[in-house]
Amino acid sequence: MGVVVKKFGGRLLENTEKIGQVARTVVEAKRSGAAIVCVVSAMGDTTNQLFNLAREITLDPPIRELDMLLTAGERISISLLSMAINSLGYEAISFTGSQSGIITDHHHTRARILRMTPYRIKEALKKGKIVVVAGFQGVSEGKEITTLGRGGSDITAVALSKSLASSECELYKEVGGIYSVDPKIVANAKKIPAISYTEMLELAALGSAVVHPRAVEIAERSKILLRVRSLNGEVGTVIEEQPSIERASIKGIALDNRIVMITLVGVTKLSDSLEQMISVIGEHSIPVRFFFHGVGEKVCDLSFIIEEQDCDVTLSLIQNVDKRLKIKQIICCKDVGQVSLVGSGIGSDGRTLSSVFSTLAKKGIHIDAVHTSETRITLVVKRAKTELAVKSLAERFELTE
Amino acid sequence: MGVVVKKFGGRLLENTEKIGQVARTVVEAKRSGAAIVCVVSAMGDTTNQLFNLAREITLDPPIRELDMLLTAGERISISLLSMAINSLGYEAISFTGSQSGIITDHHHTRARILRMTPYRIKEALKKGKIVVVAGFQGVSEGKEITTLGRGGSDITAVALSKSLASSECELYKEVGGIYSVDPKIVANAKKIPAISYTEMLELAALGSAVVHPRAVEIAERSKILLRVRSLNGEVGTVIEEQPSIERASIKGIALDNRIVMITLVGVTKLSDSLEQMISVIGEHSIPVRFFFHGVGEKVCDLSFIIEEQDCDVTLSLIQNVDKRLKIKQIICCKDVGQVSLVGSGIGSDGRTLSSVFSTLAKKGIHIDAVHTSETRITLVVKRAKTELAVKSLAERFELTE
Repeated sequence: MGVVVKKFGGRLLENTEKIGQVARTVVEAKRSGAAIVCVVSAMGDTTNQLFNLAREITLDPPIRELDMLLTAGERISISLLSMAINSLGYEAISFTGSQSGIITDHHHTRARILRMTPYRIKEALKKGKIVVVAGFQGVSEGKEITTLGRGGSDITAVALSKSLASSECELYKEVGGIYSVDPKIVANAKKIPAISYTEMLELAALGSAVVHPRAVEIAERSKILLRVRSLNGEVGTVIEEQPSIERASIKGIALDNRIVMITLVGVTKLSDSLEQMISVIGEHSIPVRFFFHGVGEKVCDLSFIIEEQDCDVTLSLIQNVDKRLKIKQIICCKDVGQVSLVGSGIGSDGRTLSSVFSTLAKKGIHIDAVHTSETRITLVVKRAKTELAVKSLAERFELTE
Repeated sequence: MGVVVKKFGGRLLENTEKIGQVARTVVEAKRSGAAIVCVVSAMGDTTNQLFNLAREITLDPPIRELDMLLTAGERISISLLSMAINSLGYEAISFTGSQSGIITDHHHTRARILRMTPYRIKEALKKGKIVVVAGFQGVSEGKEITTLGRGGSDITAVALSKSLASSECELYKEVGGIYSVDPKIVANAKKIPAISYTEMLELAALGSAVVHPRAVEIAERSKILLRVRSLNGEVGTVIEEQPSIERASIKGIALDNRIVMITLVGVTKLSDSLEQMISVIGEHSIPVRFFFHGVGEKVCDLSFIIEEQDCDVTLSLIQNVDKRLKIKQIICCKDVGQVSLVGSGIGSDGRTLSSVFSTLAKKGIHIDAVHTSETRITLVVKRAKTELAVKSLAERFELTE
């Protein structure tokens, strides 16, 4: 029987009682004969608490030290879960990211996995032990402790599934599945029974933070089936390759209010102006959502969407290339949000797009910008209207129970 | 200029404000030109809090996992102190026990250092960085995380002083020095300006837990001067070789109420009965304070002092050898405590001993047992009387201001 990787989120490990519940779930699976690797996040709010301690000391902590600090969180949860499993009479052993052979590049707080050498995990599995691995963390070739960024435990779990030749990875989350719309906005939102990697990637990248996009990417490349589920055995969501794309249908709607739209008015249309702007921002690893042009002949307006947290840095970068581009005015629009509909084929389906427009028009919601891809329609609207937009679209496309 | 190792106890790192104070002390020393290595304990009560989490899950956690858990504590304090130093404009870098090259045996929760390979520390010092090392922890040759036992950060600090060829090690403690008597019992207790390694060892081993005895041993063997001090620059206590032992004088009094006296009544005097008893208890690494015999010809009474926490295990071990030794009765006396006077030469000085006896007799304190060594007089008395004994003896031997 193969190896099963089970990842448990921080909310499921909030206190020792909940850790006991997770241990019982793990032991039950072990009884069915599988070799089990658990990947765990830090308990409940630990990562934020540690981060706040750092902020009390300095607003600009060295990122190497931040990684040293934050990795204490999973060290606590792996040892406690391992103790809980042992106390149920099953042998468990915990490993840090380093002990698990998760070798990353040297970029602290946002490291990427270079390769996996899980020798110790394999050895422990051979001895019949349940292995408990610290998610989110790794070690660089220079023996520095690194972290994979927020939500990085998903990445650890899927990368381990791959390197242990497991074809399935189970992500236990408190929400127990992926919803077509955020249940906080639309109370009776439907749970999605199955979704393709591509659709999930779009949802994940657009503010629906249930599964980390990099985890989905690895799963897609390695054809690993992801199962998002709850502890209580309810049916969750399966993320896998979809055998055939049928007619365009909307799988889910994501909302992201933490964005800013920056518009540069009257940019000189030098041949490389756009390229230059992209490269300056790209060099600083700032994710840019999309660009669009005005239609002037010699000058044009250039707008793009960035995350709110990157706003200050981006504005100062723009000041630096300002002279060359001869920008007349920089407008920084903070009162907008982004509503995205995700589903295979919807981006190129005119009927869906026109339904979206008419639904929003009826509610008096003005669309500031639209961007589509094969599997996504993204609308920028005033932030005060985003929730209304989500609700109207969820109703129109029957995403509620 | 040489390397200075500074160790900071958990009380001095209780919160981020206090960590800031420690950082300022470190930076001040750095300004004077020294190469500085800080060894830190976990913040305030962190180790106990982590231990309690483990106890919530199981009363008998695997010790490997306990070490994994507890080492999270220093990981938090090294990164925060390093951030605090960096925020003052000085370069600092934190290292775990493993990164510091503290190689131990494989005995979890009570590992001993096998050797030190502080390559990364030396490299960082060469670059002018202030190094912050996690105390209390190490790594075994099998790459397992180990801890050195309670108070183990002192051991880390002195072992590092030795391997970095430093002749002095500064132990910053909230109490700021070594007191002749516990100030909680005798409010106006004197601070000891200087004490020999041997005297300190006796005090430390007998419940006066200011400096870890193994740290003192390493310092003695390597002739490293230890300075116990506070952050505010007050004069503390120097621990060093004493050039000459003058007349017997009492340096300090230690109190230990966490002991149990077990008496085996009517033990058959087989030639190896005592040996057998010692070996059975010794095999389980239970520290035995001392033995004494009754005076019967064929049978005798055998009493010994152990730590309270070892009581249950010891009693069950005795049951196992019971048949052979034909013990009539086992008396387990929990209402006793141990008062120890420490000072070079006092154990063999009849006048001191008689002063001790008469002082206690005047106060109506019955002595259950006495044990002496060259530098120590230990008295077992009823627990209800130990504090009175300490006060009377402190007064008699002028250990108060």
